[in-house]
Amino acid sequence: MSKKSSTFALAKVFLNYHSNRYMVIAFTTPLPIEGFRRLGGNYTMVMPAEGQIVDCPEAEILVSTFDYRVPREMIESMPGLRLIANFGAGFNNIDLDTCRERGIRVTNTPQPVIEPTAELAFALMIDIARRVSEFDRTIRAGQAVFGVMRNLSHSLYGKTLGIIGMGRIGQSLARRAVACGMRIIYYNRHRLPVETEERYQAVYTDFQTLLQDSDYVSLNLPYTPDVHHLIGKPELGMMKRSAFLINTARGAHVDEAALVEALRNGIIAGAALDVYEHEPAVSPELLALENVVLSPHTGTGTWEGRITMCENVTDNILAFAQNETDKMNIVI
Amino acid sequence: MSKKSSTFALAKVFLNYHSNRYMVIAFTTPLPIEGFRRLGGNYTMVMPAEGQIVDCPEAEILVSTFDYRVPREMIESMPGLRLIANFGAGFNNIDLDTCRERGIRVTNTPQPVIEPTAELAFALMIDIARRVSEFDRTIRAGQAVFGVMRNLSHSLYGKTLGIIGMGRIGQSLARRAVACGMRIIYYNRHRLPVETEERYQAVYTDFQTLLQDSDYVSLNLPYTPDVHHLIGKPELGMMKRSAFLINTARGAHVDEAALVEALRNGIIAGAALDVYEHEPAVSPELLALENVVLSPHTGTGTWEGRITMCENVTDNILAFAQNETDKMNIVI
Repeated sequence: MSKKSSTFALAKVFLNYHSNRYMVIAFTTPLPIEGFRRLGGNYTMVMPAEGQIVDCPEAEILVSTFDYRVPREMIESMPGLRLIANFGAGFNNIDLDTCRERGIRVTNTPQPVIEPTAELAFALMIDIARRVSEFDRTIRAGQAVFGVMRNLSHSLYGKTLGIIGMGRIGQSLARRAVACGMRIIYYNRHRLPVETEERYQAVYTDFQTLLQDSDYVSLNLPYTPDVHHLIGKPELGMMKRSAFLINTARGAHVDEAALVEALRNGIIAGAALDVYEHEPAVSPELLALENVVLSPHTGTGTWEGRITMCENVTDNILAFAQNETDKMNIVI
Repeated sequence: MSKKSSTFALAKVFLNYHSNRYMVIAFTTPLPIEGFRRLGGNYTMVMPAEGQIVDCPEAEILVSTFDYRVPREMIESMPGLRLIANFGAGFNNIDLDTCRERGIRVTNTPQPVIEPTAELAFALMIDIARRVSEFDRTIRAGQAVFGVMRNLSHSLYGKTLGIIGMGRIGQSLARRAVACGMRIIYYNRHRLPVETEERYQAVYTDFQTLLQDSDYVSLNLPYTPDVHHLIGKPELGMMKRSAFLINTARGAHVDEAALVEALRNGIIAGAALDVYEHEPAVSPELLALENVVLSPHTGTGTWEGRITMCENVTDNILAFAQNETDKMNIVI
């Protein structure tokens, strides 16, 4: 937060009929206004221009986005801050220690990210399998040759998908994959209830078995420091040489340098990535590879999903203002 | 069939224990040998080099591929021909009138194409919706900008998929789409049994309603002259401006020039195409558009699918040799 900007991120919202007072909401990022209409008509909302630093010392509520770092000094610049309503399921952008010290509540929006993220994980998996982006590139370059034994790719149908992190996104991916004729194995901190396993005909395995048996490995677990570089050189070496890695979770799950090596040397067949270890930087070596599909962290990035996420932030703010903690998505 | 080549397409196959004689099988196209192993060990099989013309006057069986034209003069060059075992579900490559005149049986392989083709239709639909190929291109060009309100795309979840041609491929696509949270409407020559509709929660509509109500329109019907240019300028004009067209059936279903106009003028939002009206030529205007995904007729083109299709050709040949017509996929 080097320099303060002259753009204030400010919203005065008539929130609480009991206290009959305005609360000030700051935004780190311009978001679609239609997702915040239920905050009431009696307010002004000033969002920062894109690229501006949030600067709103009077804020009681901060709406931050998953890709915007909220460090100690930003939190301390808002002495009256009581809630950080994060836009996104992940919250590793926020300095939670500072929030705990100061008694600041943090909420997230885990529900609306489920379907869009699982949808993108599935899109990337089927794209790398069926070589859709690669063939599109070839045709556009005028280099496509049609022919019955040309342009062959791999089916999802009949193959084994290994899901690491079988939470709501992982299960949503499994639902799609089962309908596409895939067999599901999964690794999770805790084994799921039998009814849930049966819904996806999913088989619980240990981590190593998952890596060894899967034709497609998808990462769908949240990032915490203990899963940093969960997939590195040894893990890539355990995978089938014909296997594909799909990462729509967080870049730091994967040792990106080791992945580049594995992709170059045929240790695995390919990778489809929405997230990167040093995001927004993408390893330049990846850009030159044919056996990768790259997406700019757009797992939740649909128009429909963005509006729903804003609505969910609104829900959290309204519940906070009414002190209805049971209706909030509480992180801390 | 301008010039005869020097490469013979020839296989002597010990087929029939009763007649104890060899039958000669010609191939139009090199295909994976492992799919024909069940024809027996007691044979030689010579396939034409790629690009060569089939030239095998002694052939009794011709194995042709869906992309290889088998006109009258080719058929007449093989006086003893009794069976054309086509590789593919479509058979508009074959001059059926000549076959009828000469009492030649024609078989196809409709079963193994179902899952790969539905899989590709789904892959193209999700690719154009979530802009996967476009973003991959942007990243590779070093032009991607990450950001929570950047790179937004459209969900499949919650949207309406209109399927034109609700045969086995259409239903296989519907199965995937339902699992992705889509609503299914369909248009077909005949309405499906209620049990089948219920399986996909699919609603039968007339053609115009389907065009008007769908967010995604997928063509999954076989080509016959009466559906030539089924989708032309008037039909594109009936679609939502936010809608996408997916064609994995045959290029001539769509008036490609009208489609180019519609895509350029925002009459529809985008298109994902595996087939082209003047295949293998692709309209050069398509190559420059950002709101298309193009695939080089690879609907059935997976390694797994190719082997299974060869196995199915083998089934048809063996059943023909044993005169078991009930086990053949008979076209005529």
